[in-house]
Amino acid sequence: MTPTPEGRNNVLWPDVPRGPLSTYRARASFSYRELLLFWEGEDVLRFKKTIFSALENDPLFARSHGADLSLEKYRELNFLRCKRVFEYGFFTMEDLWENPLRVPALINCLGMYDWSLANKCVLHVLVFGSTVFNSGSERHLAYIEKIYSMEIFGCFALTELSHGSNTKAIRTTAHYDPATEEFVIHSPDFEAAKFWVGNMGKTATHAVVFAQLHMPGGQCHGLHSFLVQIRDPKTLLPMPGVIVGDMGKKLGQNGLDNGFAMFHKVRIPRQNLLNRTGDVTPEGAYITPFKDVRQRFGASLGSLSSGRISIIGMSVANLQLAVSIAVRFSATRCQFGPTDEKEIPVLEYPLQQWRLLPYLAAAYALDHFSKSLFLDLMGLQHGLLQGDHSARQAELGREIHALASAGKPLASWTAQQGIQESREACGGHGYLAMNRLGDLRNDNDPNCTYEGDNNVLLQQTSNYLLSFLERQPQDGVRFTSPLKTVDFLEAYPEILSQKFMGSSAADWLDSAAPLVAYRWLVCYLLQESHQRFCQEKRSRGSDFEARNNSQVYCCRSLSLAFMELTVVQRFHKHTHGCSVPPSLQAVLGRLSALYALWSLSRHSALLYRGGYISGAQAGRAMEDAILALCVQLKDDAVALVDVIAPPDFILGSPIGRADGELYKNLWNAILQQRGVLERAAWWPEFTTSKPEANRLKSQL
Amino acid sequence: MTPTPEGRNNVLWPDVPRGPLSTYRARASFSYRELLLFWEGEDVLRFKKTIFSALENDPLFARSHGADLSLEKYRELNFLRCKRVFEYGFFTMEDLWENPLRVPALINCLGMYDWSLANKCVLHVLVFGSTVFNSGSERHLAYIEKIYSMEIFGCFALTELSHGSNTKAIRTTAHYDPATEEFVIHSPDFEAAKFWVGNMGKTATHAVVFAQLHMPGGQCHGLHSFLVQIRDPKTLLPMPGVIVGDMGKKLGQNGLDNGFAMFHKVRIPRQNLLNRTGDVTPEGAYITPFKDVRQRFGASLGSLSSGRISIIGMSVANLQLAVSIAVRFSATRCQFGPTDEKEIPVLEYPLQQWRLLPYLAAAYALDHFSKSLFLDLMGLQHGLLQGDHSARQAELGREIHALASAGKPLASWTAQQGIQESREACGGHGYLAMNRLGDLRNDNDPNCTYEGDNNVLLQQTSNYLLSFLERQPQDGVRFTSPLKTVDFLEAYPEILSQKFMGSSAADWLDSAAPLVAYRWLVCYLLQESHQRFCQEKRSRGSDFEARNNSQVYCCRSLSLAFMELTVVQRFHKHTHGCSVPPSLQAVLGRLSALYALWSLSRHSALLYRGGYISGAQAGRAMEDAILALCVQLKDDAVALVDVIAPPDFILGSPIGRADGELYKNLWNAILQQRGVLERAAWWPEFTTSKPEANRLKSQL
Repeated sequence: MTPTPEGRNNVLWPDVPRGPLSTYRARASFSYRELLLFWEGEDVLRFKKTIFSALENDPLFARSHGADLSLEKYRELNFLRCKRVFEYGFFTMEDLWENPLRVPALINCLGMYDWSLANKCVLHVLVFGSTVFNSGSERHLAYIEKIYSMEIFGCFALTELSHGSNTKAIRTTAHYDPATEEFVIHSPDFEAAKFWVGNMGKTATHAVVFAQLHMPGGQCHGLHSFLVQIRDPKTLLPMPGVIVGDMGKKLGQNGLDNGFAMFHKVRIPRQNLLNRTGDVTPEGAYITPFKDVRQRFGASLGSLSSGRISIIGMSVANLQLAVSIAVRFSATRCQFGPTDEKEIPVLEYPLQQWRLLPYLAAAYALDHFSKSLFLDLMGLQHGLLQGDHSARQAELGREIHALASAGKPLASWTAQQGIQESREACGGHGYLAMNRLGDLRNDNDPNCTYEGDNNVLLQQTSNYLLSFLERQPQDGVRFTSPLKTVDFLEAYPEILSQKFMGSSAADWLDSAAPLVAYRWLVCYLLQESHQRFCQEKRSRGSDFEARNNSQVYCCRSLSLAFMELTVVQRFHKHTHGCSVPPSLQAVLGRLSALYALWSLSRHSALLYRGGYISGAQAGRAMEDAILALCVQLKDDAVALVDVIAPPDFILGSPIGRADGELYKNLWNAILQQRGVLERAAWWPEFTTSKPEANRLKSQL
Repeated sequence: MTPTPEGRNNVLWPDVPRGPLSTYRARASFSYRELLLFWEGEDVLRFKKTIFSALENDPLFARSHGADLSLEKYRELNFLRCKRVFEYGFFTMEDLWENPLRVPALINCLGMYDWSLANKCVLHVLVFGSTVFNSGSERHLAYIEKIYSMEIFGCFALTELSHGSNTKAIRTTAHYDPATEEFVIHSPDFEAAKFWVGNMGKTATHAVVFAQLHMPGGQCHGLHSFLVQIRDPKTLLPMPGVIVGDMGKKLGQNGLDNGFAMFHKVRIPRQNLLNRTGDVTPEGAYITPFKDVRQRFGASLGSLSSGRISIIGMSVANLQLAVSIAVRFSATRCQFGPTDEKEIPVLEYPLQQWRLLPYLAAAYALDHFSKSLFLDLMGLQHGLLQGDHSARQAELGREIHALASAGKPLASWTAQQGIQESREACGGHGYLAMNRLGDLRNDNDPNCTYEGDNNVLLQQTSNYLLSFLERQPQDGVRFTSPLKTVDFLEAYPEILSQKFMGSSAADWLDSAAPLVAYRWLVCYLLQESHQRFCQEKRSRGSDFEARNNSQVYCCRSLSLAFMELTVVQRFHKHTHGCSVPPSLQAVLGRLSALYALWSLSRHSALLYRGGYISGAQAGRAMEDAILALCVQLKDDAVALVDVIAPPDFILGSPIGRADGELYKNLWNAILQQRGVLERAAWWPEFTTSKPEANRLKSQL
């Protein structure tokens, strides 16, 4: 007998609690258990379940609803939790290798609990550790064990006070001294202090420091990475010559200690150069497998794609949390109604549906994209490990770089906007810290900035797309890429002559229609961007200016539209494939159509302008289709949220609990707060000294 | 000799400090002093200067850059500061009456320092105090003095746990007992607990409580307001029968103590009914000047317009602060450049200009609107005080209600988006708490929710506009209103047949062009909304459903477009009037055009769809005009910010200081933080107990 989700034990598919949400659950068009299995796969489901349960059952991870933790206390707690995560062995490589999708699942499970925790672990193992492993060589392997046992604690120090996006302009120096076989790490001034480095504030003992490598002869070989001990692991006091400190309070992720460091002629052994892409002999000769600095620099930063793809997943997780809270709230919060006596859930209002359901669809579409891009990255890394130096491998690297560079902006912005909309959709109650929407907004926010500012990153993707126009056709084909994301552009002159032939909302109800429109849109923007660039190049002369002057309305829009197309394309394929159980086809098809249309509708001015659609009816039909899909999905919304929401303990939001007992949960949480009914300790300030009104007026 | 700003003392027009921003200041097309005088007027300038100086010179107001204050400490500090504000006499009526614009100036000065402080003062005096004054009668005047001397401290308790937007459904009851001549205030259950009440958490001794008035005979007269003592002013302990507590941490404004209260048969004297709109005789007869409950209810909530108009001003202040920080940062942060050696300020990039300068223009346009609407409100209130019961007065009330109801959403959303864009435009440094963009985002956020959820409020404005279509023409005219904001609609059939005749960017460079386009747009959306409503009414039957189904894409857009038009119209008039000094005409004209075009461009799909513009060139021309205006304004941006930014002490952002010493200020502020270079107190957790990797794995 084939196992069906309904027939298995309830560990993976617990019963949802009865309560005010039961009405919506009963109306759902599908079984949430079936979708859960289809969406995650049993292995990842079990893995996530293990992690969530471990956290929930361990008092160290006890939730303190919107508590007023001091920075110091929060950082201590977060460090202790990080240690505990290693004791649980969640990060052991054997486990993670069994199924690569466990890696993002692990990061997102920890992050759904608290991003300060996830990032502290990730920065230590996956950023610091992987950099030592990937950029170093055999002589650095001893560090890996120390990382796992936390004998040392690591951070990744690239950004400086005055340079972030422009990494090439980093000013920290590393002079080689052959007399002692050491490098001298030095910060020329405070503007070159390493800045914003996660884990550096209080806990890191070692840093991967990026510095310009100078040889005794005076030659500079550009940016290299060095392993520098910054604190004594026995005392956590700084090493001589190192000024290291904590940056203080951030907008969010305050469990994580971001820090800064200045180096005053700090000497490190020659062996501490991470020498995968360039090395220095004891005598002071520089050797590298790369021909020029530029090429070597590119290779050393190539690993950034994995960071960006990670952030796509983090953003999606945040969007899932926010929309879960807001949908459950909206399904239980009643306000107004057809008569004064009868109030209805706010989810019944088309306006509320339109505010939230597209973000619910986006949470699904981007989640699928995030996983599929991660698997593409695994393919790339597999090739690297196999020593694949083929042209296809290089092309794949470029394509994934382009997708990660626009995928991070799209996902992080969608999440940021979705969280804000969710906050507002929950009204005043969404403004209470314990309901978590504030933390989500604050913790997601840096996703728009780190690993590359979103607007700057988007240029990578448009550059990639525009570069095809300059290529010579190979085998008669100019536009082709390993993952085939650009292949449709081969037909771009014909695509540009297409027009939308439908006339009613019904013509937009399947995602195939917006998909065709998106292909036209990307071709249109590619053409606009190319023309603008060429025109600016002619009139200004420099590539620098031409590129800068063709970003707004052209290249920037091109990158975003291309990215949305790719997400829509993949989600359309996934939801229309033959592996989709028949009972899920309708709801997944609607999610796909809603995400596609809603995204597309923000470009409708361009669709009109370029003549792809015309007449009032075409635009109205698109809007009607979006509203029709919202109505079709509103009864499925609660069940769709049950699939993506983590357990209540992890979600950590009284107004978003699965039982839907909105007011009981909120009231209960409020009354559990410390000192909630006590008068303030400073009450005598009120009673004993009254202001002498206008006493100080004469001073003014 | 006429005094010119240049010729006066430097108290009002201090020299801007020399430094990295001097280059931009030297390039400005106008004198910042001249614009400052034109923009604020000398009286308000002096008044603001007095307040700012008092705060800066008083150690109680010392800034603690992004410090880690506990909730308790922050609330104590905020209360002490509130007392001090009364000692300074800022709120004395004589002062405020001299020039009504001093009222918003005062609120915004305190708010620019800290919204927790401004709101604490405002809730006590202007919300609690004014309600007692306006809704009560002579017998309540004794309270006013106690408010000023802080013998009592007040709050305004309307919202309940389960009801916010739907105020009519409030469930707290007030039963009259003629035997003792008392009202019995009672919360039927915890869902009817008063909730979110500012000042109630720790400090209020008295509350204006809204409750359903029940008479001994069983009749309910609807919502009335009662003065209820909730705490003993001598001890701050709750009164018998009152459970009152603190809601805990919010996303922002944490100096303000929001609270909740449940009443268990709390008895208050008959005289504590605020009896302006309805009273109860000792024997238990109900008397009111209003014919029905609905009319009386409307009158009792009419004062909400002033709250909303206040929020418009608060939002504008937040936008001014955010954009000031981001523009100064962008003018001093250099990243990349035409060559590897030469980096340029990020403000030189068209993308950065396009991200920020429209918000700078919005900060001016909305500031002007905010002040002009406040003056309209003063006109209305003047009429009320004079006993004006004319039809015009009633019409004026409706019009101001409509403007406030859409003005609050437009201003609060623009500010929220502008703050987010500013945060991102400052990159990582914008994510540091001490730079204040996080506080601005968190403190502005509730402006989108309180005094009416933005999306719900917008319905008031569309209802107002649609109601004209049902009117009988008077004197042959159907569309007319005291402030003339709707008068253009009289010609709406002709306007709808208009088309944009221009073809190049030059045709859009004056705000007159977008103004004409906006009139067409509002007419178009009025027609679409009306048609949609009628069609839904025919097919669904009920007004309730028809209204709900015509919000998205119709009524909601109509309200926003009408509001933008009104803002654009007033700003256009203000910047093109004959009182504008010649040297300011160019820069103000550009600001007006940029705000108008940028706002309009978000509706360009509708302009195409309705045929107002057609062809690719028209849309491109609009975009080109926006970019051209950005380029024209970028050298004025720093001087424009000098006009709207408060002194450095108030702005409180190291990256936004007027001297432009970005890195010095930031580094300095970082190093001043307590314990910045110290190891964590919990360092032994790192050194003594190492995790046994995988120790707990077997438990999983």
